[in-house]
Amino acid sequence: MRIVIAIIFIFIHLASFAQVNRIEPLNWWVGMNNPNVQLLIYGNNISKKTVRIDYPGVELIKQQQVENPNYLFLDLKIHPDAKAGKVSLVFQEKGKKDYVKAYELKARDAAKRALQGVDASDFVYLIMPDRFANGDPSNDRIKGMADQSLNRDSMYHRHGGDLQGIINNLDYLEELGVTALWLNPVLTNDQPLTSYHGYANTESYYVDPRFGGNEAYRKLIEECHKRGIKMIQDLVHNHFGTEHFTVKDMPMKDWVHQWDSFTKTNYREQVHMDPYAAKADKDIMLNGWFDRHMPDMNQHNPYVKNYITQSHIWWVEEMGIDGFRLDTYAYNDLGFMAEWGKAIDAEYPKMTYFGETWVHGIPNQAYFTKADKISQGIDTKLQGVTDFQAYWAINEALNGNFGWMDGVVRLYNTFASDFMYEDPYRNVVFLDNHDLSRFLSVVGEDFNKYKSGIAWLLTTRGIPQLYYGTEILMKNFASPDGLVREDFPGGWKNDKANKFTAAGRTEKENEAFNYVKTLANYRKNNPVLQDGKMLQFIPEDGIYVYFRYNDDKRVMVIMNSKQESVKLQTKRYQEGIGQYTQATNVVTGANIENLDELDIPAVSTQVFELK
Amino acid sequence: MRIVIAIIFIFIHLASFAQVNRIEPLNWWVGMNNPNVQLLIYGNNISKKTVRIDYPGVELIKQQQVENPNYLFLDLKIHPDAKAGKVSLVFQEKGKKDYVKAYELKARDAAKRALQGVDASDFVYLIMPDRFANGDPSNDRIKGMADQSLNRDSMYHRHGGDLQGIINNLDYLEELGVTALWLNPVLTNDQPLTSYHGYANTESYYVDPRFGGNEAYRKLIEECHKRGIKMIQDLVHNHFGTEHFTVKDMPMKDWVHQWDSFTKTNYREQVHMDPYAAKADKDIMLNGWFDRHMPDMNQHNPYVKNYITQSHIWWVEEMGIDGFRLDTYAYNDLGFMAEWGKAIDAEYPKMTYFGETWVHGIPNQAYFTKADKISQGIDTKLQGVTDFQAYWAINEALNGNFGWMDGVVRLYNTFASDFMYEDPYRNVVFLDNHDLSRFLSVVGEDFNKYKSGIAWLLTTRGIPQLYYGTEILMKNFASPDGLVREDFPGGWKNDKANKFTAAGRTEKENEAFNYVKTLANYRKNNPVLQDGKMLQFIPEDGIYVYFRYNDDKRVMVIMNSKQESVKLQTKRYQEGIGQYTQATNVVTGANIENLDELDIPAVSTQVFELK
Repeated sequence: MRIVIAIIFIFIHLASFAQVNRIEPLNWWVGMNNPNVQLLIYGNNISKKTVRIDYPGVELIKQQQVENPNYLFLDLKIHPDAKAGKVSLVFQEKGKKDYVKAYELKARDAAKRALQGVDASDFVYLIMPDRFANGDPSNDRIKGMADQSLNRDSMYHRHGGDLQGIINNLDYLEELGVTALWLNPVLTNDQPLTSYHGYANTESYYVDPRFGGNEAYRKLIEECHKRGIKMIQDLVHNHFGTEHFTVKDMPMKDWVHQWDSFTKTNYREQVHMDPYAAKADKDIMLNGWFDRHMPDMNQHNPYVKNYITQSHIWWVEEMGIDGFRLDTYAYNDLGFMAEWGKAIDAEYPKMTYFGETWVHGIPNQAYFTKADKISQGIDTKLQGVTDFQAYWAINEALNGNFGWMDGVVRLYNTFASDFMYEDPYRNVVFLDNHDLSRFLSVVGEDFNKYKSGIAWLLTTRGIPQLYYGTEILMKNFASPDGLVREDFPGGWKNDKANKFTAAGRTEKENEAFNYVKTLANYRKNNPVLQDGKMLQFIPEDGIYVYFRYNDDKRVMVIMNSKQESVKLQTKRYQEGIGQYTQATNVVTGANIENLDELDIPAVSTQVFELK
Repeated sequence: MRIVIAIIFIFIHLASFAQVNRIEPLNWWVGMNNPNVQLLIYGNNISKKTVRIDYPGVELIKQQQVENPNYLFLDLKIHPDAKAGKVSLVFQEKGKKDYVKAYELKARDAAKRALQGVDASDFVYLIMPDRFANGDPSNDRIKGMADQSLNRDSMYHRHGGDLQGIINNLDYLEELGVTALWLNPVLTNDQPLTSYHGYANTESYYVDPRFGGNEAYRKLIEECHKRGIKMIQDLVHNHFGTEHFTVKDMPMKDWVHQWDSFTKTNYREQVHMDPYAAKADKDIMLNGWFDRHMPDMNQHNPYVKNYITQSHIWWVEEMGIDGFRLDTYAYNDLGFMAEWGKAIDAEYPKMTYFGETWVHGIPNQAYFTKADKISQGIDTKLQGVTDFQAYWAINEALNGNFGWMDGVVRLYNTFASDFMYEDPYRNVVFLDNHDLSRFLSVVGEDFNKYKSGIAWLLTTRGIPQLYYGTEILMKNFASPDGLVREDFPGGWKNDKANKFTAAGRTEKENEAFNYVKTLANYRKNNPVLQDGKMLQFIPEDGIYVYFRYNDDKRVMVIMNSKQESVKLQTKRYQEGIGQYTQATNVVTGANIENLDELDIPAVSTQVFELK
């Protein structure tokens, strides 16, 4: 099957005999909530043709020529009574023979959406597919593709990881307590350089053949769903890769934002909300390119908007995607993101999506979310964000010194500001990701701090997200060498050790793995840590105490940021302890017979289920 | 007259022959928008009496006994047809002779409210009355008062400054460009220790006799109003002094918040907005005492609420107060503050007030303002705040190093967050105040930084506020010795130098004075720096550029935070410059013939009026 996918891929790219090289979306469905779909038809001088459709319930509303004669856009309306089947698109031209292409309308499959929606009950595991596991060495290098690197010694070359590699290790992830996967983008990135990371897609409807193509993706998702594991697709609205076919041969000049000379974005999200922002700064932020090989899509162009939005719906409908992560959120036009959110919500009311908001300050971060409070009139529908403010706060809590506003107080303050969000429980909390230094390195390889951070991650509000390998103590810094994207040991045949197995891990790695596993599975089995309410106390003397509670259970979390152990008098926390008198240490299973005074080791976060 | 005031004061405090020692408010008015007023009657066993009123249009709605028999509360309704005059309150008791007290209802005087409302057109000058100028040495020490200190060598003793001292120097303030005075509280503080600062009032209706009493206050305000200078009264809702008569002999136990043992507030404003706040923390924040000698008023007690609110209305109506500064805002019950704001707005639609929000982070600061955006349902009506976020930002801009989020970027970011406020132009911006280290010391006595900060203060959005003496380079740090409250040189007879006069100032002091004066008067005469719109550009290379503009004028402000001068290419700022080609340097008067490239000295803020 892998060979078939590769052949299909080559066929699409090289085919020149046909008058129509592409029709996208690749297919559509009957019975969608939105009856409209816009087909992009790509072929040499295709705009000369007139299209005729004769299929019950399918109406050709409009046929649109654009600047480039190689494109035609067909606006179809699929009426509720239309049946699944193949629609003949008849391309006509005076004096020439009709040319017919079949376009499939499928029946929808509700089963694929059974798990849809990622929320605080989940534990998300982020994988860079090229770097996790190589399940199929035959697809490591694909002839005809621009990036022919295959070199595990370089962080910038391809390593050969793929979706089959993930499939092979689903048991491992399930054991760890993972309930959702977020993969860095899997779409084809046929770029000559650093194609491995996936953020410069050159196709919108095809998974990279080096990852196994669409069939491997379908299989991975099916295998995940069997285990109750959800799939989060990483979407990039802001840019494509320079080698995307619509960029190499653009439908119209304003398909992407054009500049007289190369202009990078200024990376300043402030221009969105600043009441005093200069238009010049805003233009550069929104329309400047994220990087030389990432053309900035013109999100005011209605064809671009349709093309992007439809592709996302296609992936949900075709594969059964459960959630979205939206890359470089602040670089998008928020008007478009609001339209996009509305379109997604209309089709999939249970779908969730969170935006990457690598921005500074809680007002700015909250600004991008479903913005009924501080929106200035734009409702992005965005339920959650990658909570960078909480990320910086946990770093300060673990590495800073306790002070009036410092150390664990930063963490307390950050959550005290949760009034800014419509639903802070939709925010994704994390200790690291593919762009950030690995957590173990950030805490100076201090294992106590590592465990303290993990315990926080899995007990605080929000959707916890772990970066692959953090559970087995992978380390290194993001800059200057990108070593945070190293391969998961054991993902490749002949790797010296296989850390996917207990036997392959060192004692300390097993301790880390088991620590994550214990807390993640406790969390998975105890809704109190999912949607349970939170209660927090003003930190005193380096100690930060919070509770999670619901009608059934009550969990007390004590973060001791000090270098010494404490005997904590709990009287002050009576409001959280309530009528409980005993507790179980969730990690060790130890019984605490008296809650009045608790022994809290130095630099640790203790998790107690009260009883 | 001074002697008269002192006698009145002693009379009120010592009188015991009468059955009624006090009636407060001291008087009221006919024709108020709110027809209701609640009189507090204080006298030995006064609660045994029944009160009768026989005055056209004045209705005794309710007579209320409380726990302490020495108090009676009378709820009066003053109907629209009531005429000014003296109402006889007839105190009756079976078997005893009627006892009659006159209670005056005055006619209102709209002239006193002609200037009411402080806004961005103003320039506020903050004075600590004990430390500015001693206009009347005869009132420096008042017999019978608890604090008999009079010692200019100690920061904690009284120095003798008074309201006559301010009156004597109004020409100086007018020359400087001041349009509003904010005095630290002037109410009697008959506390034994550190009574000078005014924040522990023991009277609610009397100006401290050591400041000259009510008559001096009336005279000061009249003199101010003649010059178009407004008066901002500093109000403390949160606490009285321990020696307040209602605290020494409380109407009821819950007049103030009582604790088993002395409990200080925790000074954490976060409990207001934190969705996860512990009630225990919130209680301590709101009901804990600000300090040992500052009992925390119970703002849920309706008698307390009336007593406080009515006293504030009394001062406006009696004296012609133009604005309020609300002390320790975050320590108040916001429900009460909302009620209070509603009562003030109902009586004085043009009145403005700003709260002291020494809080951390823009969400927290904005939370206290007129809170339609992030209020959680409480509308405090608070138009503005003391903008501590801008204060920290200007400090960072002047003293920090330029970086992605540091140096002048902090200033840019702070204003970019102005979307959080309903009206950020109502915020009070400042470089120092009575609680903070003096600005000159904060910038390491760097005169260039000093001037740069002053230029920012007088050109940015908001209501600029200067602390007395900053214009003549007074310096020193707030801790540990409180030397930021030193006397203004020349305010006392026989002071070595008189800095109120150009001749008494050094050359550098005159340079500073004239710098403030030039910019303040330019601001005063040019609405563009008052309510003019703002436009700011992302700082680059240590340079922060903003514009203020309206239909008539355009001012370009360039803050160079670098240690070197720059030749600034202005092409990037075209949006702000528009069609203008030349400029005048507002401080030097120099003409700039070509705007394409501007010479900006190191560490300076240049202000150009475009032409």
